[in-house]
Amino acid sequence: MSFTRHAHPFPLSSIQITSPFWGRWQDRLARTTLGIQYAQCKSTGRLENFARAARGEQGTFEGRVYNDSDVYKWVEAGATLRHVRGPNPELDAQLDEVVSLIVAAQAPDGYLNTYFQVNHPDQRWVNLGDLHELYCLGHLYEAAAALVEATGDRRLIDVARKSLAHVASIFGPDRRAGYCGHPEFELAVFRLIPHLPPDDAAVGEALVRWMIDIRGVRPTPIEAEHRSNVRPRTTTHGNALAPDAAYDGKYIQDHAPVRETDGPVGHSVRAMYLYAGATDAAIDRDDAPLENALTTIYDRLVQRQMYITGGIGPIASYEGFADDYVLPNRTAYAETCAACGLVFWARRMGLATGEGRYVDVMERALFNGALAGISLTGDRFFYVNPLASDGTHHRQEWFDCACCPSNIARLIAGVGRYAVAKTDDGVQIDLPIGLVVQTEVRGQPVTVRVESDYPWSGEVSITIETAKPLELELRVRIPDWCPELEVDGPGDDEWTYDRDYAVLKRTWESGDEVKLDLAMPTTLLQAHPAIEADRGRRAVQRGPLVYCLEEVDLGCPAPEFILDPTSEWDEVEMKLGDEPIVALEASGDYEEWPDADVPYTPAELDRVPKRGRWIPYYAWDNRRAGSMEVWVRTDR
Amino acid sequence: MSFTRHAHPFPLSSIQITSPFWGRWQDRLARTTLGIQYAQCKSTGRLENFARAARGEQGTFEGRVYNDSDVYKWVEAGATLRHVRGPNPELDAQLDEVVSLIVAAQAPDGYLNTYFQVNHPDQRWVNLGDLHELYCLGHLYEAAAALVEATGDRRLIDVARKSLAHVASIFGPDRRAGYCGHPEFELAVFRLIPHLPPDDAAVGEALVRWMIDIRGVRPTPIEAEHRSNVRPRTTTHGNALAPDAAYDGKYIQDHAPVRETDGPVGHSVRAMYLYAGATDAAIDRDDAPLENALTTIYDRLVQRQMYITGGIGPIASYEGFADDYVLPNRTAYAETCAACGLVFWARRMGLATGEGRYVDVMERALFNGALAGISLTGDRFFYVNPLASDGTHHRQEWFDCACCPSNIARLIAGVGRYAVAKTDDGVQIDLPIGLVVQTEVRGQPVTVRVESDYPWSGEVSITIETAKPLELELRVRIPDWCPELEVDGPGDDEWTYDRDYAVLKRTWESGDEVKLDLAMPTTLLQAHPAIEADRGRRAVQRGPLVYCLEEVDLGCPAPEFILDPTSEWDEVEMKLGDEPIVALEASGDYEEWPDADVPYTPAELDRVPKRGRWIPYYAWDNRRAGSMEVWVRTDR
Repeated sequence: MSFTRHAHPFPLSSIQITSPFWGRWQDRLARTTLGIQYAQCKSTGRLENFARAARGEQGTFEGRVYNDSDVYKWVEAGATLRHVRGPNPELDAQLDEVVSLIVAAQAPDGYLNTYFQVNHPDQRWVNLGDLHELYCLGHLYEAAAALVEATGDRRLIDVARKSLAHVASIFGPDRRAGYCGHPEFELAVFRLIPHLPPDDAAVGEALVRWMIDIRGVRPTPIEAEHRSNVRPRTTTHGNALAPDAAYDGKYIQDHAPVRETDGPVGHSVRAMYLYAGATDAAIDRDDAPLENALTTIYDRLVQRQMYITGGIGPIASYEGFADDYVLPNRTAYAETCAACGLVFWARRMGLATGEGRYVDVMERALFNGALAGISLTGDRFFYVNPLASDGTHHRQEWFDCACCPSNIARLIAGVGRYAVAKTDDGVQIDLPIGLVVQTEVRGQPVTVRVESDYPWSGEVSITIETAKPLELELRVRIPDWCPELEVDGPGDDEWTYDRDYAVLKRTWESGDEVKLDLAMPTTLLQAHPAIEADRGRRAVQRGPLVYCLEEVDLGCPAPEFILDPTSEWDEVEMKLGDEPIVALEASGDYEEWPDADVPYTPAELDRVPKRGRWIPYYAWDNRRAGSMEVWVRTDR
Repeated sequence: MSFTRHAHPFPLSSIQITSPFWGRWQDRLARTTLGIQYAQCKSTGRLENFARAARGEQGTFEGRVYNDSDVYKWVEAGATLRHVRGPNPELDAQLDEVVSLIVAAQAPDGYLNTYFQVNHPDQRWVNLGDLHELYCLGHLYEAAAALVEATGDRRLIDVARKSLAHVASIFGPDRRAGYCGHPEFELAVFRLIPHLPPDDAAVGEALVRWMIDIRGVRPTPIEAEHRSNVRPRTTTHGNALAPDAAYDGKYIQDHAPVRETDGPVGHSVRAMYLYAGATDAAIDRDDAPLENALTTIYDRLVQRQMYITGGIGPIASYEGFADDYVLPNRTAYAETCAACGLVFWARRMGLATGEGRYVDVMERALFNGALAGISLTGDRFFYVNPLASDGTHHRQEWFDCACCPSNIARLIAGVGRYAVAKTDDGVQIDLPIGLVVQTEVRGQPVTVRVESDYPWSGEVSITIETAKPLELELRVRIPDWCPELEVDGPGDDEWTYDRDYAVLKRTWESGDEVKLDLAMPTTLLQAHPAIEADRGRRAVQRGPLVYCLEEVDLGCPAPEFILDPTSEWDEVEMKLGDEPIVALEASGDYEEWPDADVPYTPAELDRVPKRGRWIPYYAWDNRRAGSMEVWVRTDR
């Protein structure tokens, strides 16, 4: 194994989304979601905090210490969407206003964090472990990169350059040792680098490589902060003496260096962002210890600690990981941001290795664990994504800690970045969704047009348009859920197989069309027996979509239904609001519990035959409230 | 409903234990457990802390703030055991030494807490919410009561009297409002009262009734302490701003008065001790709101939040309760002390109401969730009692926070208090274990002799010995697990039924013997479908004992076994060390997971027939390490 720049994401400007599925999501973003999020940032003082900093106000900061990041993530989502869906005067005006606020708020020395500027100017960089200063800057840098890619507007790039120079004047091998309790800065600097002059880029890259290298080398800089008792030590245990307990650093991945870590640890969003940044740092470096550690952590995560939805981090109390195979469904935390983070990390692992198995996980998290985070109306959000519900868990309009809504927004807006990638010799199709890529291969312009009704159908058409015949390697991922791939079209007997990709390298004439049929049968899955909540149950998957059973369709509590695993499955086209979906139906039994006041009974229960209807997990909780299950009981 | 003094526990001095089962446990206590616990109290500085306080040392306290309580609980266990098992010179010498240490440590004004006396004399009673001062005194009072009952030694009663007077000089309706963040003081004062002069008893009773009444009336006194920031607020969430979050009081049942509570809340041991004390307070008071609240909380607990083992409090991070039906098996916290606490509370509810259903729960918690807390060698202890294990969870020699070892010791030593009770007209047999009670009915001495091999057999002989014929009402509980009761002997056609008791009121001749046969078939239980970890599984119970499957018997991981629920069951007598048990065997299949690295598979797995052997849950983890399950998968 060696992490290289196997494939690159295309710049946003090269991709147009034509997918009916993702087009609907992006339309909702344009029509509803981004306007709502702008209004929330305004009404909660998130925007005004920047104005307060610009005016030099003191003591009037509103909200949580990390609220700047929500504004930056909204800018990233808005700029990205503006590009892929075209001009949008209202959004353009809002973006311009917010960017101006950010520019004005930056301190003359390059510092930017409205919480500290307004409320605690004397406490800059005092508590890196808890207070998210570098985290917020990371989101600023990602927003800057998206804005310049989408519009050419370099104002935030200038802010980011000044900010990065300021950070590098404080932290570094010859200066103070430090890094953020919440990783994000690391991956963001790697994203910013292509937009920086070479000298700035070199400074930024050296800085974040060093931050990743020293993180967790005990005693760590954050450990020292904790000892100085700047803030009370947080704990997951109400024990009277726990605040005096030893610092272990696990919550923020500060327990050991990434290179010495053998599984995901602590807060899951922090973990994903750190590992994503470390993957960026490992590319083209021949850094075997880091590559091995990342691969080991990744495998442990997806083989033993990931829900079938791609949700991760089951434990609510510290928003993080548990032991292997501890994956309860109803109390699953599975934060929307953690699924987004898994998309970010798995994408980078795939690009670094060229292995389709990473994209399998990326796809699983994207279409299920992450996408469930937003309602079909685009105006409500899950923070927590359980795989079973008693009917009391619902999406909310906003959160006091509002990291998730803007994270899912920027992911949907930028979905093209995850669907296709550029290789040296051609184009790699990771998700065969409808889109058009305009690129060059060896200096010659080429357009690759993908048409499909993915994820509802596995029938995909890929058309190459080029001014003159062109040799180009087409790589199409064969998903883990797909038992059979048929290809038809020019060169259909020349396909080869490489690391879960079907590969066709040939000289294309303009208009050459390849048709692929990724078989997409309804599939029943069972879980490793050590996952106790899934034992004796089956999950249903069709294509990349994991399905669930809702009480609103079933007419009885979902936990009381028992699927007959030998039942034939029917596909049923239906609509949930304006969302056309393929629902699935199969037969089973309903077993009524005799007495709600009896928790355990020796009685054998009567069964009544019943038909069950499954809908995609991402679409649950969009109708009348009721119980839901992904893992449905079967007998055998 | 009206809580009255329906039945009383007998004083320890009236009961002799002849049960082979409990006799073995008490022998282990005498031979091993209490000596170990004494040695641990000595080597960890728990004893020396008392000497330090006596000498007026400053700053040399060792260990956790609540460590005095472990010493008091050891005294309670030792005194109780000394009575029921007879003289024991080594134990007597240790008891005398420890009692002398305690007496010497008490401050002249009656204050007693070695942490504050030695390390923080200026901070007495500053932080009631977190620092356990009254909690420790409660255990002192229980020890004092046990010591005087067992030996007539009044030294600790004198300490307790002085202490109680001191507490009452500080707290009270006309003084400072306050109560302990960890309840225990309340129930302990009720236990101490029979040993106090009437005036002191009245003061103590008024004080704890008031503490129960004002607890949770917002803003509460502890809430005010928290606002004053005496200590950092603990939280179950590592969130950077959580320390500023609003105080909700739930962890310590300070969110609302007991009278306004409709389910168990917060830390489970605290909850049990509070509800036990509140039950004591409700007796003979016609306090319908308190009775109703306690009954509602209790029903919610045992109907929706109790494991089949009687374990309670599934969540590790705050050692407490979750939502209804959230009862994961492998990650179950189910602290040994919480099961002990449920025994204490359910016992009081049973005595207050005369209803056998409370004793059903007491028995379940005693024989399963609590008793698992100690090894069959008497020298290792569980703090946490999961209902499934991957083979890595084992009993420990001791804990830094060592509440559990002495709690299970005092429970085993005092088991007679839970087995029989005195009614106005006779004797109530709650657990038909072998014992001899000497008592009086209407002034006439009578001996009731119970002989059985309980819990292995339901065949019970009860013999009445009396100098002359005596009218006496015998009440024998019919357990919830018992489908059929046969009686034989004088008056066998005169039995009546009352609230889950078989009742026989008649005039007895000396030597009259009643034989009862409580049918004890092996029974398969299934759980409410909302308990996701138990869905599609069965638990096995025989008599009061819940069984489990261990890998050491099975030869394959317990989660991979599938029980055939129609299998015939065999009873197999075997020994685990010196513990004779009845094991159970049935047939099923073994289903091997194809690839340890695959978490989810569409494959249908092959099955191989296999015989399973179950042992009682209390006896698990006493052999070679391996996986264990209480809830075993079945098909149907």
